[in-house]
Amino acid sequence: MDAHDMLAVAVAEARAGLAEGGIPIGAALFAADGTLLGRGHNRRVQDGDASTHAETAAFRDAGRRAGYRDTIMVTTLSPCWYCSGLVRQFGIPHVVIGEARTFHGGHDWLAEHGVRITLLDDPECVRMMTDFIAAKPELWFEDIGEDVSADIGQEQS
Amino acid sequence: MDAHDMLAVAVAEARAGLAEGGIPIGAALFAADGTLLGRGHNRRVQDGDASTHAETAAFRDAGRRAGYRDTIMVTTLSPCWYCSGLVRQFGIPHVVIGEARTFHGGHDWLAEHGVRITLLDDPECVRMMTDFIAAKPELWFEDIGEDVSADIGQEQS
Repeated sequence: MDAHDMLAVAVAEARAGLAEGGIPIGAALFAADGTLLGRGHNRRVQDGDASTHAETAAFRDAGRRAGYRDTIMVTTLSPCWYCSGLVRQFGIPHVVIGEARTFHGGHDWLAEHGVRITLLDDPECVRMMTDFIAAKPELWFEDIGEDVSADIGQEQS
Repeated sequence: MDAHDMLAVAVAEARAGLAEGGIPIGAALFAADGTLLGRGHNRRVQDGDASTHAETAAFRDAGRRAGYRDTIMVTTLSPCWYCSGLVRQFGIPHVVIGEARTFHGGHDWLAEHGVRITLLDDPECVRMMTDFIAAKPELWFEDIGEDVSADIGQEQS
């Protein structure tokens, strides 16, 4: 199972999230031998849960583990600081990323701290996020903590 | 409501977690005016959920918000990289920390990035974590991704 095969699982999660009316970001946690340990997608809309980004969902789905040295986190989008912090704290040594064009998170920081980064620049991942951000910009900014309404409020006051 | 009053809410959460057989770390998210927005505690043991640290639980409990510029995250223990990443990504400008003696997470990094840090060095927070780590070291190491079993395994192989 190569990086593209693993990404396909994360993309299927992103598509499922989109079909539910949610934010189309998916992720999966694999063992180094290709065994799927957990998978999930962003659940902000579906569960009203601001804390469940795709990587968090996949990490939770994998259950409790003594360690993560033999695991690979696969995500459709460059991980934000929250999800990058998850990777660093739990010592996940390898992150496969669908794309980093529509959002550039903390993956350079992870690389500086010894995490192997595989950036696939996948056209379907780029297209899903580009279309989503164009259709629902407020939802996207909410999900990454970009307080657009506060900017508008400050300008008006 | 001062920092000690806010910490009392997080400490009550930590005690509740301990009473449930869980990891005694609690947190709360407040508005700058002292309004409680969300509260919670680590749920690794209770829910078999590796992704719910105290800060994550409090953040989730606060529901969906357009922004966090007017909020304060209060936690009994220095936030790990995962929870520090949460604070940075969502632009939470102030973190109140019960103690950083038993674990030193990412709060210096947050300070470098402009987050105000209030470290209270609270004796009850120190005592709860010291007692917990002495009683259940494996559970503690699991919660911060310190793969003790893998170290032992590597030494033996």
